[in-house]
This record gives sequence, structure tokens and C-alpha cells, in this order.
Amino acid sequence: MHPYELTLHQAAEQIRERQLSPVELTESVLGRIDALDDRVGAFASVMHEQALHAARAAEKEIVDGSYRGPLHGICIGVKDLIDTAGVATTSSSRTRTDRVPDTNAAVVDHLEAAGAVIVGKTHTHEFAYGVLTPTTRNPWHLDHVPGGSSGGSAAAVVARMCQGAIGTDTGGSVRIPSAVCGTVGLKPTYGRISRRGTTSLSWSLDHIGPLTNSVRDAALMMDVIAGYDRDDPATRDVPVPRHTENLTAGVEGMVLGVPRNYFFDHIDPEVEAAVREAIRQLEGLGARLREIDIPYPELYMPAEFGILVPEASAYHQQSLRQMGELYESDVRGLLEAGELVLATDYIKAQRARTLLQQGWRDMFDGLDAVLAPTLPATAAEVGQTSFTWPDGSQEAVINSCVRTSAPGNLTGLPGLSVPCGFDRSGLPIGLQILGKPFAEPTVLRVGAAYEDATDWADRMPEGLL
Amino acid sequence: MHPYELTLHQAAEQIRERQLSPVELTESVLGRIDALDDRVGAFASVMHEQALHAARAAEKEIVDGSYRGPLHGICIGVKDLIDTAGVATTSSSRTRTDRVPDTNAAVVDHLEAAGAVIVGKTHTHEFAYGVLTPTTRNPWHLDHVPGGSSGGSAAAVVARMCQGAIGTDTGGSVRIPSAVCGTVGLKPTYGRISRRGTTSLSWSLDHIGPLTNSVRDAALMMDVIAGYDRDDPATRDVPVPRHTENLTAGVEGMVLGVPRNYFFDHIDPEVEAAVREAIRQLEGLGARLREIDIPYPELYMPAEFGILVPEASAYHQQSLRQMGELYESDVRGLLEAGELVLATDYIKAQRARTLLQQGWRDMFDGLDAVLAPTLPATAAEVGQTSFTWPDGSQEAVINSCVRTSAPGNLTGLPGLSVPCGFDRSGLPIGLQILGKPFAEPTVLRVGAAYEDATDWADRMPEGLL
Repeated sequence: MHPYELTLHQAAEQIRERQLSPVELTESVLGRIDALDDRVGAFASVMHEQALHAARAAEKEIVDGSYRGPLHGICIGVKDLIDTAGVATTSSSRTRTDRVPDTNAAVVDHLEAAGAVIVGKTHTHEFAYGVLTPTTRNPWHLDHVPGGSSGGSAAAVVARMCQGAIGTDTGGSVRIPSAVCGTVGLKPTYGRISRRGTTSLSWSLDHIGPLTNSVRDAALMMDVIAGYDRDDPATRDVPVPRHTENLTAGVEGMVLGVPRNYFFDHIDPEVEAAVREAIRQLEGLGARLREIDIPYPELYMPAEFGILVPEASAYHQQSLRQMGELYESDVRGLLEAGELVLATDYIKAQRARTLLQQGWRDMFDGLDAVLAPTLPATAAEVGQTSFTWPDGSQEAVINSCVRTSAPGNLTGLPGLSVPCGFDRSGLPIGLQILGKPFAEPTVLRVGAAYEDATDWADRMPEGLL
Repeated sequence: MHPYELTLHQAAEQIRERQLSPVELTESVLGRIDALDDRVGAFASVMHEQALHAARAAEKEIVDGSYRGPLHGICIGVKDLIDTAGVATTSSSRTRTDRVPDTNAAVVDHLEAAGAVIVGKTHTHEFAYGVLTPTTRNPWHLDHVPGGSSGGSAAAVVARMCQGAIGTDTGGSVRIPSAVCGTVGLKPTYGRISRRGTTSLSWSLDHIGPLTNSVRDAALMMDVIAGYDRDDPATRDVPVPRHTENLTAGVEGMVLGVPRNYFFDHIDPEVEAAVREAIRQLEGLGARLREIDIPYPELYMPAEFGILVPEASAYHQQSLRQMGELYESDVRGLLEAGELVLATDYIKAQRARTLLQQGWRDMFDGLDAVLAPTLPATAAEVGQTSFTWPDGSQEAVINSCVRTSAPGNLTGLPGLSVPCGFDRSGLPIGLQILGKPFAEPTVLRVGAAYEDATDWADRMPEGLL
């Protein structure tokens, strides 16, 4: 077994026991990137020298008896939307080709303080404004998209080009690529992780989250990257729990909500079958299921786009004037459209969001978590623009992806995607687990119970080499 | 001395000691309203029957030994923007002449639960969208305005037509009429008091607050009306202190900030002299003064109006279509203007607000409170549209009032106005005391120290009868 094949917690265990050196792991991971990434395209840039330097420093510290914790010496990819001091951070955009920030984003500071080895910057759909990540391919089928916008992060993680990665999620951008690439992806509660130094797509919807090959790996990353930051006014000064503490306590006695409406309204039958089987398995593990009605189903899409589109345009307005021709045409079109939105419409979208938040709070009374498909379909083919549902209706790929993701962004509630099967063409399917505010430990515990009882996690795409 | 002349805490003391009956007080207050209000115009409606009914119930309870606390049997006016079950609530607008809500606003529920006697609905500038309250006159000079938008509340309180009143403050609407009528007015921290059942002007800037004839009275009202409400998503589940507890502890050792810029930039010399004298008096009482720079002085007015104007238009959009001709022309013009604002401009105003909030948080490091003029001028004459400053420049009345008030609304920080003198024509002047989030007790303590050391509080306009 090559070191790059290890999950984050497996590698961490071997490093702690000094059975594996951070330098060995990093060399193995960099070799994997060198061998694979010309076909996958997960990385915007690979930080060979910096990574080896960090790995050697980690090795020395550990040999000297200064083990920092489970991320010490672990190889991490960071979405190229997130600043890394001295390393190009381009948001996968031609408008930022030459941009090298002076300082790290908060989340990178946290990773480095924990001794992590940043191996490279992973591709995003330009400025996180899309679900395709056209630079990158799905490691399970190279003619399919990896999802987006954190497509590079998910592709890198599942192809073992890093043990974990950081993504961002504004309309599903951690969970979407996680579902279609078969990684574990957590969008935490709004305000749980600082966004200082991360380029904004839509500041009232933007979240940062980890992508990994197991639920335990996600918990280990959360322990390091979560917490209050006075430089991100959205972060909340709420104590950070140890996310690994009750991870294996199981779901016995938990009450899990199963939506009657909305999430299953338009869905691929293979995806629905896999998700419903996962729900039955959680019931078999001792959870009680309760059917629930998702409130205000007609409001999610207008509220999500009604907020996101003008917020993105406000952020990019000046840059669009100065170098509009350098944006990709899809992103430029959306940015221009957002300049036409009236304030009253944006305000009504924010008011609708408040209704949704109150509706979910009430719906969550007596529930521990809600189970749903992460997405209604598996990965689209490159060039595919819509899905066709069993009733013959069509839905644009972006809308299909955002539809089941947006509730988590609009409510700010934590949402975890865990692999729960494959369709007949071998593409992964994701189960989504949504929780109460700051209940990441509960959401992870449900995910871990499911993962431990099944064998979908930690699968590796074959045939890439 | 007539019972109506008593301050809230004086009346409360006499009621508790059974030296005064709630019925006596209410009859005295209603008589005062009947005698005066045709000239002042503070009330949109007077609730003679309901008030006497409530007073008799209070009297019976107290005689039966069930004294509820300091508001039991006390006469309170409620701004006509705030719902009262079964009683017309018109927002002083012809669009709502016939509107009788079925349920109380949260704040009215709290007052009634405390045994208060609601004596009437006080006038507001139509829908709280202005600083003049044209229905109402200033009790100190009937040819001057009472300020707004809670002009009826301030006029009623200072003219002893109630012991206390409830107002709302979106761009100064509690503090502005308090300053120009000589009442104490507190705009608490954003989220401190529930706005359920209160007509919105601009939901992200709207606050509810008390107007009284002494700082102690304001503290007593805060004890009753503050607190979390799951029906107002802006309220915060932060414990409610007893606002009267350390009220008389003084300012010895406190550090009070005195702005070098912004608040004193354009100001009437008589107002400036009174405010600077008040600051000296607080220093004489043991406070340490520290000069401070107000951050981003150029951003307050664009941010305040950039948020308020489109939010108001979003709220009124449908009603404006249906009965635009029933709005007063000033309000209608503002509502129509707000429909033209672009979402990107509103979003940039909200982003500027975030900067201001961070700037004030940093500025407040090491400070207990900030001292400033509530307003740069005393009450405008009826019909007056602008003030002329010593440098010859002119400023619209509404801008002058909002300029020194808006920092409290945009930051959400608590702001108290206390009387600190009179100009040569006998019009009151207000000192503004701003504090940290949820530091209402500190702000009230500074106000009480000043009030106890001077004799500006609890003055009554003469010559009205």
C-alpha cells in the first residue's frame, strides 16, 4: 500500500506512532499528483517545494517529541479561492493570474498551526460561481464533471492526491462535488469557520468546509479550522466542541426527519433508491424516522439566487468594469445580470430567507437531524446542460444541484454529504445529513454510524493509472 | 400636586405604598390629556374606557395583595406603529384608518403582563418615515415640532399625559423627539426588544425603546420590555439584567469617549456649549475622558439611507400600488425613490455598515461609553426645512437629525438621550450616551449619574394650560 492511499486518520495514526514520516507521505502524495493530475486537473498549482519544506519541518518536530496533533504532517489541498501567503491564489480566474497574497486566510493559518502540509491549490469553478469546475474531471469517469465549485478539492481527495481539502459552499459547493466524486463533505453552520482571506462569492451565504475520505477525517479537520474570528463579523463566539468525541456513539434513539416533499420531488430513480436504502439502514441502526414537510418549498430557489446573484455582482462590480473580457462568459453573464436586480427584490429574498429559517427551526423541534439526497442525480457528463427526470421534465444542471443544497446555505444549518452507493455506470451517490445550528458533532455522528455500517466510504477510483 | 405630575418611579412608589390608587392616577392623566391634547396633538387615539378598566383591575389586584411590580397601575402611551388588540393602530397613516389588529405587539403584551395601563396611541410621523410628526406640537413651544418619528410619545411624556411611552428608532426616532422635547429616551441594542406586532420601517435598523421623564423610569420600563422572542428573529437570547440594579453606582473610574470629529462638525453653539458642559460635569463626577476619532465619518449617511430607503420601499411596495394616493406626499416620494435603488448599491451600504460596526468595536476598546450631542440643534419651527450652521452652510432638518442618530442604528449599539439644558428660547437640549452591545445598564448608569448631579430632568413645560 502506498502512503498516499491512507485516509487522513490512518496517516495521522501512523505518523503519531512514527511508522510513517511526513516526508514519506508528502513525497508519495506529490508523486501521485505528478502521475495523475495531467488527466484529472484537480490542482491550479502544486506546491512541491513548500510542501516538502513543511513536511521536513513536521518530521523534525515529531522526532523531537513535539507532535502537534492529528493534522501534523498531513497533506492538504486548499481551494484556490483561499489565500496562501506567497503562493498564487487566482480563484481559477484569468482576472487574477498574477495575484499572490501577502497573508494566509484564517483557515490556512489554522492548518499551518496544526502542522498540516499544504500540497497545492485546488481548482474552483471561476470565482466559485458555478457547479462544473471545467478545468477538472471526475476521477471516477473522466468524461464527467467533478461538480463544483470545489471540484478540484473533491477530485484531489478521492483520487488520493491529498488526505483532505478545504472547499467553500455558497449554494452547495462543498456538498455537490463531494456527492458526485464520492468524498465526505461538510458545510458547517454559518459563522462556524472564519472566511478571512477567502474571496467572497455571496457573503451572506458563503461557508468554508472540509472534504475528506471519511467522516472521522472531516471531524479531525473541523477540530482545527472551526472557531470565532473577530476579523470575520459573521463568525459566532460559540465554544468549539471536540468533533471526534462522541463520533462513534451511534444513532440509537435519535429521531431523524425524512422529507415527504421537495428533496425527492425530481430525482433520478437510482439516486432515490440508494438514499432510501441508506435511510432504512440508519433505521436498522436504531434511529427513529419521522416524516416531515419541508416548509416553503417554492421559496428556496428564488431566495438563493435572489441573494447570491446581486451579492456576487456587488463584489465584482469594479473588476468587471476594468477587465470584463477576462472573465469566462458564463460567470460574466451572471455578474452582468446581477447588476440589474432591484434592491427591493433582493430585500424580499432576504425576508423570504428569514421565513425559511423560522420554518426550519420549527420543523427541527424534536428532531436530531434530517436525511435527504445531497443531489438528485450523479455527475453530469462534460458538456451536459440539463437532467431529464422520470416525468419527462428537464432541469438545468446548476438548478438541480443548487435545489437540494440551497436549504443548507439559506438556513445556515450544517449539512454533511457522505457516499451511499454508486449508479450503474459507477458514479457515486451522496446522502445529505442536515442538523441544528452548531450541531456539527451530531451530523458527523450520524454520518459515522452510517459509514461504519456500510462499505461505501474510502473507495478509490480504479483505472486512472 | 396632581397625580399626573409624578414621574413613573414616583407614581410607582406611591402605588406600591397604597398612597395612590391606579384609578386616581389614570383619571388624573386622562383629565390632563382631555385638557391639553387638542393643542399638543400627541395622541392618535385615547383609550378612556380600556384605561379605566385596566386601572380598576390593577387597583383590585393591589388591594388584594397581588402587586406585580413598578409598572403596575402606571399610565403608558404606545406609539401608533405598535399593535394593540382591539384598538385602532394606524401608523398615523390614512392608508390604515380602519385597521384594528386582533393581537397585541410583544411589547404591549409585556406591559399588560406587568399591570401597566395603556392610556392611548401616540402619534408617529406617517409610518415612522420622518422626523417632524406633523400632527403634533412641541409642548415647550407650540410653534415648534416635537421631532420624530416618535413625536407623540415624547410630547405626551413631557407634558405629563402619561408616565412613560414606547417609541421606535430606525434613524433616531426615539432619541430625536426625546432631545427636542426634553424627555429621556433609550434606543437599546439591536435585538434587545422584540418587534413582533410593530410595523416595520426598515427591519435591519428598527429598534423599540422607552421614553420617560427620568433615567430611573427608563430602567424600570426596560426591565419589563426587554428580552428574547422567537417570533422576532433579530432578538438575541442574551440574559436580561435588572436595569435598576447599579443605576446609582456613579461614573467614578469610568472611561468616557469624547469624539473629536463627526458629532461636533456642524452644531449650534448653544447646543455644543450645553453638551460640553455636561461632559465636564461627568468628568467632575470622577469619569476619565478620552478623545476619540469616530471611524469612517463619510459612511454614516449613505449607509443609513442606502439601507433604510429601499427596505421601506420593499415593505410598502404592494400597498403603494393599491393606495398610493392615501400616503402623505413626503412619505410617498421617499417610497417611490426607494423602488429605484439597485441591489448592488443596497448591498454596498450593508457592507459599509459592517465596516462601521467593526470600527466602533475597535474604538470602544477600553471605553465604557461615548458622549455626544443627541442632535446638533434644538427643535425646528413648524415649516422650517433646514438649519444654518455657524460656517454659513445649510443642512436639511431630517439630515441634521439623522446624522448624529444613525451611528446608533447602524452599529446597533445602545444610545440614551438625557436632557442637558435649554437654549435661549427655552427649547431642550439632549446629551447622547452610547454604549457597548447589551450595555444598557452602563449607559443608564452614566445617564443617572448626570441626571442626579444636575436639575435638567423632570422639568415640565409651563404655560400650556
